[in-house]
Amino acid sequence: MTEHARVPPDRLEAWALELLKAAGLPEDEAAEVARHLVFADLRGIDTHGTSRLKIYLTRLEAGVMAPTARIQVLRETPVSALLDGGNGFGHVISRRATDLAIEKARAQGVGLVGVRNSNHNGCMAYYTLLMAEAGLIGFACTNSVANMPPWGGRQMFFGTNPMSMAAPAGENPPFVYDMATSQVARGKIINAAREGRPIPEGWAMTREGLPTTDAQEAMKGFLLPMAGPKGSALAYAVEILAGVLTGALIGPELPRMYEQLDQPQQVGHFFMAFRPDLFRPQEEFARRMDETMAGVRAVEPVPGVDRVLVPGDLERMQEAERRRSGIPVPPGVRKEFHELSERYGVPLPAELR
Amino acid sequence: MTEHARVPPDRLEAWALELLKAAGLPEDEAAEVARHLVFADLRGIDTHGTSRLKIYLTRLEAGVMAPTARIQVLRETPVSALLDGGNGFGHVISRRATDLAIEKARAQGVGLVGVRNSNHNGCMAYYTLLMAEAGLIGFACTNSVANMPPWGGRQMFFGTNPMSMAAPAGENPPFVYDMATSQVARGKIINAAREGRPIPEGWAMTREGLPTTDAQEAMKGFLLPMAGPKGSALAYAVEILAGVLTGALIGPELPRMYEQLDQPQQVGHFFMAFRPDLFRPQEEFARRMDETMAGVRAVEPVPGVDRVLVPGDLERMQEAERRRSGIPVPPGVRKEFHELSERYGVPLPAELR
Repeated sequence: MTEHARVPPDRLEAWALELLKAAGLPEDEAAEVARHLVFADLRGIDTHGTSRLKIYLTRLEAGVMAPTARIQVLRETPVSALLDGGNGFGHVISRRATDLAIEKARAQGVGLVGVRNSNHNGCMAYYTLLMAEAGLIGFACTNSVANMPPWGGRQMFFGTNPMSMAAPAGENPPFVYDMATSQVARGKIINAAREGRPIPEGWAMTREGLPTTDAQEAMKGFLLPMAGPKGSALAYAVEILAGVLTGALIGPELPRMYEQLDQPQQVGHFFMAFRPDLFRPQEEFARRMDETMAGVRAVEPVPGVDRVLVPGDLERMQEAERRRSGIPVPPGVRKEFHELSERYGVPLPAELR
Repeated sequence: MTEHARVPPDRLEAWALELLKAAGLPEDEAAEVARHLVFADLRGIDTHGTSRLKIYLTRLEAGVMAPTARIQVLRETPVSALLDGGNGFGHVISRRATDLAIEKARAQGVGLVGVRNSNHNGCMAYYTLLMAEAGLIGFACTNSVANMPPWGGRQMFFGTNPMSMAAPAGENPPFVYDMATSQVARGKIINAAREGRPIPEGWAMTREGLPTTDAQEAMKGFLLPMAGPKGSALAYAVEILAGVLTGALIGPELPRMYEQLDQPQQVGHFFMAFRPDLFRPQEEFARRMDETMAGVRAVEPVPGVDRVLVPGDLERMQEAERRRSGIPVPPGVRKEFHELSERYGVPLPAELR
């Protein structure tokens, strides 16, 4: 168990589905979560994929997450809605919010949907890509537990507060970015700590505000915002949209996912979709998107770089490779999978046994 | 003329107003531009203030900018509009777009306004603060001439493509950020070059893709995106909203403001405003904004930092200081002011003579 096992995505998804059902999720909600986690694994976002199953199920067993998302619409206009997620899986709640934003955008041109009383909801790009596949420009963000000080400070306040935007093209797959507002996602430090690897300088500081390359020290300390004051302002902006606006808890109030198993996360999310044809015919927009992508890809690369990519290319290349070779499961995660498999009585795919 | 002269903001604004009128702008448009430029000067955004008067008037005289913005509404829905700016001053066109976004947000909850056929439009925060003063959450961005390669490339493609978001609070002034998606704004390099100062490493690369601290070399080379691939993706996102969506020219097609005096800039902008009370009562939102600001300001600062600021604080402190002490005008800009004053027959304020 020292090498990364490889498992075909459909087999991993089928296992995750059965596991989630065994843990008490209804079929459709279990399917949505399993699909989302394997989407993340396929795209190389290992920190937001099936490696999170253990903590989700731990929180579910601790009674601080509901197996079924009893979603309520608290406020609604033709262009907007505020949802209470009923403390279900963030993936399920956010999928509902995304579908609602798409529906409103189709009918009114634009849809804004806020969510409170939710949980960790995976990859923002999952939601914005659904919007782009519906022909819309999409935006999504979420707040998260305090892991990063505001610029100039040495107490954690903001989460890594990721945000994503996607836009459809014509011949090409959509433009999509999905970024933490920290220099790196906390998940990368979690993984390094789990695997005993050091982290590069500039990712995080110790609790005392000193630079560190020790992942364990970084776990106790805090992340640094991307590009200093700019990333700090973007994290704050996400906090306003996902937390202040929705009535969710905000950064410093949010319980820690891995350490605090005695209270619900109560994170908030914000979704927005709008129709490009509010501004110009869809086919003109799509053609122009294609031209821009061709222009970017034709830029001469710096030495050592093969070719210049459009945001989203890297994840699609990763996905193609992993569809061929399977999703790699590192030893630490595989061990967790074994435990989960036994605990819930759901046999692992042969590749992971 | 080696020290920075200081001039009271109202006197500088009155001079700019008369100068712009003498150059052919109607009274109301001249007033809007003068107000905007002095707003930028007051807030310490010297690169977007009256120091731009010379290039604006040079372009006006060259016939590639119209003295009057004949704005046309090309497409409109209850929640959106696309404007053709008629190649007038970007400040005037963007003010109209902002007012329209505010009007639509008040009526429908949200307003999205795109602009094509415009020119350099100053500080994005000018527009988002107008939205915040109207009780709305505001977003604004603009594309701009190619000055930055996409991540991994060594040909300029994206502009510095600034974006701003503002949100109203209760007792406190609004949250507002306004950032270039480059590591720094090109204006900072322009100013350093004009004043013969070196620039810090990491701001820009030479034309060959090498690091440089020489502002002249950087002017010939390109800026680096903030936080590497993340800033590159944000610049791209702005290009989609302000350029692709609006039908403006995009980065590599846009003529260079200072060098190409034979064609209109044809930049595009994008504005959005929406009502917080789509999601929760305005007073609840405002109170929560205040709590968040108090929380951020109470964070313990790192050694060497006096206190942690909320985005917008620094510019307001600068504004308070400059209202007291006057706006500093560096020798190079003062010289340009003298030339403009003589050329248009508008006497300079006594402090600048």
